[in-house]
Amino acid sequence: MSTSFSQRVVAAVDIGGTNTVFALVDRQGVIHRRGSLPTRSATTAQAYIASVSDAITSNSSEFQIVAVGVGAPNGNYFNGTIEFAPNLPWQGIIRLADEFSARMNVPAFVTNDANAAALGEMYFGAAKETKDFIFITLGTGLGSGLVVNGELVYGHDGFAGELGHTIILQHGRPCGCGRRGCLEQYCSATGLVKTYREILLTSDPDRTTAVTDESITSKAVFDKAMNGDEAAFYAFNYTGELLGFALANSVAYTSPSAIFLFGGLANAGELLFTPTMISFEKNLLSIYRNKVKLLPSGLPENDAPLLGAASLAWNELEKR
Amino acid sequence: MSTSFSQRVVAAVDIGGTNTVFALVDRQGVIHRRGSLPTRSATTAQAYIASVSDAITSNSSEFQIVAVGVGAPNGNYFNGTIEFAPNLPWQGIIRLADEFSARMNVPAFVTNDANAAALGEMYFGAAKETKDFIFITLGTGLGSGLVVNGELVYGHDGFAGELGHTIILQHGRPCGCGRRGCLEQYCSATGLVKTYREILLTSDPDRTTAVTDESITSKAVFDKAMNGDEAAFYAFNYTGELLGFALANSVAYTSPSAIFLFGGLANAGELLFTPTMISFEKNLLSIYRNKVKLLPSGLPENDAPLLGAASLAWNELEKR
Repeated sequence: MSTSFSQRVVAAVDIGGTNTVFALVDRQGVIHRRGSLPTRSATTAQAYIASVSDAITSNSSEFQIVAVGVGAPNGNYFNGTIEFAPNLPWQGIIRLADEFSARMNVPAFVTNDANAAALGEMYFGAAKETKDFIFITLGTGLGSGLVVNGELVYGHDGFAGELGHTIILQHGRPCGCGRRGCLEQYCSATGLVKTYREILLTSDPDRTTAVTDESITSKAVFDKAMNGDEAAFYAFNYTGELLGFALANSVAYTSPSAIFLFGGLANAGELLFTPTMISFEKNLLSIYRNKVKLLPSGLPENDAPLLGAASLAWNELEKR
Repeated sequence: MSTSFSQRVVAAVDIGGTNTVFALVDRQGVIHRRGSLPTRSATTAQAYIASVSDAITSNSSEFQIVAVGVGAPNGNYFNGTIEFAPNLPWQGIIRLADEFSARMNVPAFVTNDANAAALGEMYFGAAKETKDFIFITLGTGLGSGLVVNGELVYGHDGFAGELGHTIILQHGRPCGCGRRGCLEQYCSATGLVKTYREILLTSDPDRTTAVTDESITSKAVFDKAMNGDEAAFYAFNYTGELLGFALANSVAYTSPSAIFLFGGLANAGELLFTPTMISFEKNLLSIYRNKVKLLPSGLPENDAPLLGAASLAWNELEKR
């Protein structure tokens, strides 16, 4: 009797390097239950998936879980796997979707965190009415998801939307990917700090100590800029200039009606948006000018990964 | 009686600055009738559309024309219009689809020539089995069309896929679009000639006469390179290096399984493909390496515009 009146929800799972958070999320994006586990709590991926599944299903008897959505670094949509993720404890290829599906007896889906968040923006954020947009997350790195005609672009192999690794300055800063000049080396929290340090060093080449100072975080650069520090202000300007330039180029691919900026750096507000917008409009091809909105994300920062993973599951159910 | 046995075809129309060519094309891509008219033959767009329609319908009684597909510079898919095309004789916005549809009493569709050719590659060329690809046409400029999950990307306004106007060198060569450093200023027949002239001038600053010599066409540079001219060979090398770099960046957007190169410059074969491929693989993010084929188009060069326009019409009919 209880089942027929139980509420339909999806289980959303966000796998981070340190913690895994999970929740039950309904079609309106309301989070009904949430919990977390250390990602390294179990010795094998199988044992880890078992603990997460048990934690989700316990204390959820008044809900009907209809699918599982997982957002994970290096998550692959087509295979439902995590493949060689450098920040996760397991080696090789982990068949996440199959394992979750077998444990919980419902369909399970996997994608990377930025793609999931792009879907979250469409289902529960500021892109509800938008069928063509680019979602950018400005955190430690720069993640992205492209939505074309109301559908997330996965590409032939599930790895579409890596704008953080487009090269915007040939022979530029070395990147963790082994190449140089990638966008995320400039337009991210890490990139902002690097730019700020370069400015300090340029203005006074003897300041090598100050420049390696670990207390210089993106938050510290933000605080300095808000307090009138010119170098910090210029660091935001340079970051925005390059971001605006890169985004203007990206419009020539999919001609979106909006670009949403999410994440720590996007919270810097005017400090980042003003130089980004100026550079964006300046660098746009004329046929796109005054047509593409550059907007802050409408997702709540802390819940965005869960809402992203949930929207992946809802999206897949609705495709069927 | 004749109607029930008549073959179903679409009318394909390719509007160029000088000539308009048209044909009847069946679902297999066989061209059954063809003709042409000077694009400037009539004083108004309406009179021009009337002449083209009459020319198509006369002498076509054994065929059943089920739709019209039009490829045109600045053609807009969503509105069915040509908007302010600088190389066409008519001012403002021309409602091509509506006019053709009214004249010929079948649905009519419009898109720009590069988008049409990308569909042509999918229907009648080398991309028949490929659901995610990028089509590049290397002519006077650089045109492109993106196909994602088997569908052409139009963007929110119909203007997606202008890779020729992504800026690859900030402060680079001035472009007709009013900005600087656009890809098509380097990777196109025009770009190749500019590069060759720059090389001549660098090697001997007094050669200004040779450098402005109008006989230096992309074909002439090709012939020189094939005959061992180092400057010409290096011009192809530089063109390929930049093209490979730009295409490697483009993969990070839609993660295609193939990129097709079409048009005059693509016919240079190894001279262009070798440096392009080397640069492409070198500049690819590791997750994409050895996965993306760089291939010559499978479309016959002269008929590609017609086959593109025809595939647009077939594609729209099959969507319904």
